[in-house]
Amino acid sequence: MVRIIDIKQSVFADNDADAARLRQQLNERGVFLVNLMSSPGAGKTSVLKRTVDALKDEFRIGVMEADIDSAVDAETLSERGVDVIQLHTGGMCHLDADMTRQGLTELGVFGGDKSPYDLVFLENVGNLVCPAEFDTGACRNVMILSVPEGDDKPLKYPLMFQVSQAVLVNKMDALSLFDFDPERARARAAQRNPEAAFFTLSARTGEGFAPWLDWLRSQIKTNRG
Amino acid sequence: MVRIIDIKQSVFADNDADAARLRQQLNERGVFLVNLMSSPGAGKTSVLKRTVDALKDEFRIGVMEADIDSAVDAETLSERGVDVIQLHTGGMCHLDADMTRQGLTELGVFGGDKSPYDLVFLENVGNLVCPAEFDTGACRNVMILSVPEGDDKPLKYPLMFQVSQAVLVNKMDALSLFDFDPERARARAAQRNPEAAFFTLSARTGEGFAPWLDWLRSQIKTNRG
Repeated sequence: MVRIIDIKQSVFADNDADAARLRQQLNERGVFLVNLMSSPGAGKTSVLKRTVDALKDEFRIGVMEADIDSAVDAETLSERGVDVIQLHTGGMCHLDADMTRQGLTELGVFGGDKSPYDLVFLENVGNLVCPAEFDTGACRNVMILSVPEGDDKPLKYPLMFQVSQAVLVNKMDALSLFDFDPERARARAAQRNPEAAFFTLSARTGEGFAPWLDWLRSQIKTNRG
Repeated sequence: MVRIIDIKQSVFADNDADAARLRQQLNERGVFLVNLMSSPGAGKTSVLKRTVDALKDEFRIGVMEADIDSAVDAETLSERGVDVIQLHTGGMCHLDADMTRQGLTELGVFGGDKSPYDLVFLENVGNLVCPAEFDTGACRNVMILSVPEGDDKPLKYPLMFQVSQAVLVNKMDALSLFDFDPERARARAAQRNPEAAFFTLSARTGEGFAPWLDWLRSQIKTNRG
């Protein structure tokens, strides 16, 4: 059984300040929070499954699954032997820092002497627009663009690409069926954020996961100083 | 060259009342407005291209392409020989009735003795969450779910399926590559809205378009009374 948390609307007017505060609190607790964003169905849960499988012996991992309704993703993840809670947004299209903090608190990150986790993933609501506008307090924003969506997405959803430190192009195993040019996607993503890392992979076959996992390890290391 | 319109934030507090008023005005002008919604990259523009090609000798068609940025879709559509305008939402994640009216006015629907169009398509912002919450004043809401997104979407984005009078499952030509069961999708969509029509098709190959086009023709006929 997956625990389901009903998230409440935030009371803070200044989300940016609250997010900075949360990031600081996470740093002090030694917790690296990754905010995973994408369109509906781009493969957040599948990428997460494979990532968790690969890293669960190196890190103490907790997962927060945000969804408007249902606990489908949390149930899938809980089979991997990591701790998962489901956050219900009650129709809200994004998470902000305070909503993220509610989830982290339920996960036990702020209770006791030490956090039970050093790596926490937040699977945001499937939406390329609104989540980009709200800093969740995460240490890194990672977005997934899937091959069937097309390589024009950085042109049409600029802010999402601008705020993400890594872009994962998922469903590369389906490349032959779709009009998607990875190099064109890379160039267009770079126009929005030249600093962002860019990976092509497939959560179905596992191809391309090693560079992404290495990048994530290096970011966690950098953050620890 | 595609004409680009910057849409302004609405001044009306009561969008539902404004949407009902717009729908009435469209009826009086003999204009059938279809609001097309989906995730980013599910195939709104491709479905629209094929639909416009099939119907442009039967109806006088106008198209409004809403996007946060870029005019990619409008340029694609304008090659089909129909009139297209691009609506820029300036970061907004949805369209409401007043924003839709701004587009229709620019399209010339309310000027002169008669509307130059009797069928107008609004391609909404790619987003499965927010557009579902705002009545645009359209005569019908049509949503596209694409095969790569997965058949669990009615569980996770309930409102979108609830407010749509038709669900088009696109990219059926890619079915073999993805874990998507059309009958499961149909049953789950029906849980949200048992009245909604349900079609499986492929904008790439054209398979399955005839029933959708027939449904659309019948809706327009019903609306005319």
